[in-house]
Amino acid sequence: MNGAETLLATLEHNGVEVCFANPGTSEMHFVAALETSTRIRGVLGLFEGVVTGAADGYARMSGNPAVTLLHLGPGLANGLSNLHNALRAGSPIVNVIGDHASYHRDLDAPLTSDIEGTARPFSHWVRTTSGEESLGVDAAEAVTIARRGKIASLILPADAAWNPVASGAPLVAAQAPAGGVAQTAAAEASARVLREGGPRTALLFGGRAATAEALALAAGIAAATGAEVLTNTHLGRIPRGAGRHAAKKVPYPIKDSLPLFERFDSLVLIGAKPPVAFFAYPDRPSRLTPPGTRFVELSGPGRDADALPSLQALYEAVGAAPAPATELALPQRPTGSITPEKLGAFLGHGIPEDAIVVDESLTTGWRFYPETVGSRPHDWLAGTGGSIGYAMPVAAGAAIASPGRKVITLESDGSGMYMPQALWTQAREGLDVVTLILANRKYQILRNEMSNVGVPEVGPKAGALLDLDRPEIDWVSIARGMGVQASRAETMDELGKAFDAAVAGEGPALIEVVL
Amino acid sequence: MNGAETLLATLEHNGVEVCFANPGTSEMHFVAALETSTRIRGVLGLFEGVVTGAADGYARMSGNPAVTLLHLGPGLANGLSNLHNALRAGSPIVNVIGDHASYHRDLDAPLTSDIEGTARPFSHWVRTTSGEESLGVDAAEAVTIARRGKIASLILPADAAWNPVASGAPLVAAQAPAGGVAQTAAAEASARVLREGGPRTALLFGGRAATAEALALAAGIAAATGAEVLTNTHLGRIPRGAGRHAAKKVPYPIKDSLPLFERFDSLVLIGAKPPVAFFAYPDRPSRLTPPGTRFVELSGPGRDADALPSLQALYEAVGAAPAPATELALPQRPTGSITPEKLGAFLGHGIPEDAIVVDESLTTGWRFYPETVGSRPHDWLAGTGGSIGYAMPVAAGAAIASPGRKVITLESDGSGMYMPQALWTQAREGLDVVTLILANRKYQILRNEMSNVGVPEVGPKAGALLDLDRPEIDWVSIARGMGVQASRAETMDELGKAFDAAVAGEGPALIEVVL
Repeated sequence: MNGAETLLATLEHNGVEVCFANPGTSEMHFVAALETSTRIRGVLGLFEGVVTGAADGYARMSGNPAVTLLHLGPGLANGLSNLHNALRAGSPIVNVIGDHASYHRDLDAPLTSDIEGTARPFSHWVRTTSGEESLGVDAAEAVTIARRGKIASLILPADAAWNPVASGAPLVAAQAPAGGVAQTAAAEASARVLREGGPRTALLFGGRAATAEALALAAGIAAATGAEVLTNTHLGRIPRGAGRHAAKKVPYPIKDSLPLFERFDSLVLIGAKPPVAFFAYPDRPSRLTPPGTRFVELSGPGRDADALPSLQALYEAVGAAPAPATELALPQRPTGSITPEKLGAFLGHGIPEDAIVVDESLTTGWRFYPETVGSRPHDWLAGTGGSIGYAMPVAAGAAIASPGRKVITLESDGSGMYMPQALWTQAREGLDVVTLILANRKYQILRNEMSNVGVPEVGPKAGALLDLDRPEIDWVSIARGMGVQASRAETMDELGKAFDAAVAGEGPALIEVVL
Repeated sequence: MNGAETLLATLEHNGVEVCFANPGTSEMHFVAALETSTRIRGVLGLFEGVVTGAADGYARMSGNPAVTLLHLGPGLANGLSNLHNALRAGSPIVNVIGDHASYHRDLDAPLTSDIEGTARPFSHWVRTTSGEESLGVDAAEAVTIARRGKIASLILPADAAWNPVASGAPLVAAQAPAGGVAQTAAAEASARVLREGGPRTALLFGGRAATAEALALAAGIAAATGAEVLTNTHLGRIPRGAGRHAAKKVPYPIKDSLPLFERFDSLVLIGAKPPVAFFAYPDRPSRLTPPGTRFVELSGPGRDADALPSLQALYEAVGAAPAPATELALPQRPTGSITPEKLGAFLGHGIPEDAIVVDESLTTGWRFYPETVGSRPHDWLAGTGGSIGYAMPVAAGAAIASPGRKVITLESDGSGMYMPQALWTQAREGLDVVTLILANRKYQILRNEMSNVGVPEVGPKAGALLDLDRPEIDWVSIARGMGVQASRAETMDELGKAFDAAVAGEGPALIEVVL
């Protein structure tokens, strides 16, 4: 066995099932080692952001660490922006980053760069293996870290990959993640707050705390106390629809989020931090809550496993009873011309049973969330770190983690252009992903933000950096070029037909929705 | 005036002409300030790697600092891999990276990350401005750094951009780059080496030293001493073709580069370092030169301006005379089926007068270089840092810097898929770029490297990470989807017709060359 084989066997031994990869020369031994793995599947991305985004999507849906394979500093660099989202989603990821052979690094060959320094801002744990004999321990430790919902980046010099390892040592086991612990003192403090002023209190979910069970408990607590259940604007994953318990999402626009929090004296935080504005704006506060708002941390950020037992303790402390789940309530499917409002109802009507919705619809889609409360049960995945272009890669990984489930990607034309290569991976792997491109031909969010930051008027030179209509992007051509069947919808009826066919079919499809 | 306007005015005052941009909310005041700039042109890229790659191409061709505008840590991250190439090319670049307002940063909003830490591995100079009043000085210092062929990254918190600046202060001037200095002692040492054993000596060019004048002097020196003129494998820019003086490029494959250097006892280094292998391979040396090779540094890496006067001194010291320039010698245009060998001759025949060739042809194109020695005069730009996907963005920037010149991009299908969004910018700006996609449907370079690193056979699981044929990428569709006219060539005759039409026309065109 060589180092690469030891690394891969250790990952396999610890339950890793998929390696999302964009390899280069220094990773060839790792790639060759994949040949002998019976359990780990290699998935090729033609750009590293696809690789890391797919790993994020896979990790969000499976809960299991995803492994990426990246090529030196620049390969890692291309994957960083989606690692930023993964980090904010609490997704378990092990990055394996190839490097020059250890003795080659100091020679400053063209591809040499500071890989550890590049990884650090977007990783919880960074290590360059000290050599082939350490790789078993390193790989197990990386999985241990990842299982805590963190990003572990293991740098693999080529000689550590290709050197033979003294055989006979048993494979190293990673640590199991820590179990959840009920925060009883916090539950009692929360119960006091709720008893004192339930209707002026909100339960705010963040991180990975918003599971179906946790939301059901929160709904019971809310019913017993008059409190409201909120979630952060962008969660990595939240179960929604019929049979689940709904929560109100904190709106993204600051003009809407500030008034929301004026209704509350107190916030009970469940995996969330005190809420802040996504961006700062001149003459607006950065904190979304009024001064004097009281915060009680029921379970801390990054301690997602504590959320459920702590909520259970709170549920009991306030004497809550089961709250009724959301009933199926499908909007009518709209007809005629396409408007953002109608698209919300269309989605509410059409989300398939047990679907995974990956949402990067931004300005078009701010109306979609309330319209899908009573839809068929589904999971909703959002852009946790605000880095754009995450949706199509995340959809690919989510589909790989969830065979048999349909994935619906709500993509903007501007956002989609960051990592369109994800479509090719969707086609290659035959993934059941239906992508709606909501094409408004501009960075509408930036036109909105211009006025938010106090720029009253956008002139032609500035506007040229905000509009996408010259040339128009033809998403049908782009998708077909990457092997994905595609069509364009200019009316709700065309959209309905295309959507029904895409959902009924197998493999990926894309529909350009002209707004 | 606010901070953003001061920053932009200072850049303009110091000769900046183009800002390649992919802005976000925190950059809106900078975008608005562009409206009032009479001299700086904003160019939109739909992905940050396009922005930084275009800046690299612009800087290589104009010699003038290019400015990029990037959105917080993830936006910067998406641009890093092409900054790596720019750094290795010695391209002058000023990155302006927006950040949250200074008072908002500690609140850890979703887009918050360590921007300085992210910039540092790919920058020579990193600074977060201390506020709007410092921006004039900061901008001038960034230009000073960039003018030395370096990457300067200036982080601009949103409040520094939008706060008013006390008026009246004159705009700050950047320092002029240092002039070149003849390294006379080094020239004398080089002359001694050449007199002792000219035919066993090579002059090796690296960095930005290989200008037309420098190569002419080197040719004279070689003719007088029997030495050979070599260049590093990947130069940012080298003038070639008829009327210029040719140099032999160090081959990329280690099986070819090792024997080359066995012919020499001594190397005279002109902006180059002692040559090393691009990658390490088991049982191969990392240094390309045999032990005992003598190195004389005529002008140091990063001191490109010294190269010309130092060569002049060496030229005089060895009593050289002008060497004849390369004569025009066009290969016949081949016909019939398409092979990589014929493509070399096709290019040699077809490169237009004064064209800019951006080369990322990798395995297909290793034959192209010798076939184009006697072509019409042109500049040849290569992937200096080994980070893949650079060519189409660099072509866009090179074209913007060089109105009236045709740009020919030699792109591989695998490499092209990293940043295809560059085609959209080429269409938007109406750039005269002709892209040849050399489509072999695989990462052939990795298949080659597999055997180089000692993996004799590629099995199906490993091969699945190296082949691009499932699904086939339809580059004609992708290009048209981004507004670039495109066609497919399956014979040399089809290629000839399409190429002639593309070169004769205006605006970008793409030809998928099926291998």
